[in-house]
Amino acid sequence: MSALSQASCEVCRVGAPKVSESEAQELLQQIPEWSLIDVDGIQQLERQYKFKNFAQAMAFANQLAEVAETEGHHPGMLVEWGKVTVTWWSHSIKGLHKNDFVMAAKTDALLDE
Amino acid sequence: MSALSQASCEVCRVGAPKVSESEAQELLQQIPEWSLIDVDGIQQLERQYKFKNFAQAMAFANQLAEVAETEGHHPGMLVEWGKVTVTWWSHSIKGLHKNDFVMAAKTDALLDE
Repeated sequence: MSALSQASCEVCRVGAPKVSESEAQELLQQIPEWSLIDVDGIQQLERQYKFKNFAQAMAFANQLAEVAETEGHHPGMLVEWGKVTVTWWSHSIKGLHKNDFVMAAKTDALLDE
Repeated sequence: MSALSQASCEVCRVGAPKVSESEAQELLQQIPEWSLIDVDGIQQLERQYKFKNFAQAMAFANQLAEVAETEGHHPGMLVEWGKVTVTWWSHSIKGLHKNDFVMAAKTDALLDE
């Protein structure tokens, strides 16, 4: 479990700073399974998790939903048979805040439970 | 509630017939909120449902997951804050079977419960 997964989300307000390109690259090293993607000009973090069936994928989505509610920061979760694709980004700043890397690490940590 | 939502899914095997273009247009009239989309050459049905927050979106996804398990046919569900985007198609035939229209109608019917 990475140190990042132990952090909490700071309040992310409109105008809060996006991570710089060098910060993003440094933080990505702590969550090596995640990819930086660009969706309509908005940088996001994305990772796909594989499961044995639909029910297990849904169970993971529910675990992640609980973490999201606790932290007050919510992902995109595409649930399909045997897989969940998770995306994190900060709507308020239309890009990536450090929060998103924290949440990505917390998402990974669910698999260790 | 449409008659389509009362139907059950037939077993859909590899080689089962896709719906024809005219059948698709006729079935779409029973589920007018759904769109036909093309994803990498595979026809799919898609509809976005709006909710008040993340928890309500997740609750809907869980209701739909139960229906999917009962029918043995599973959607794509993109859960985000305040919305769920549902897609139906038949993996085995790489396109749309009548089952998918039945499942779309069943998805709509969840809102009437």
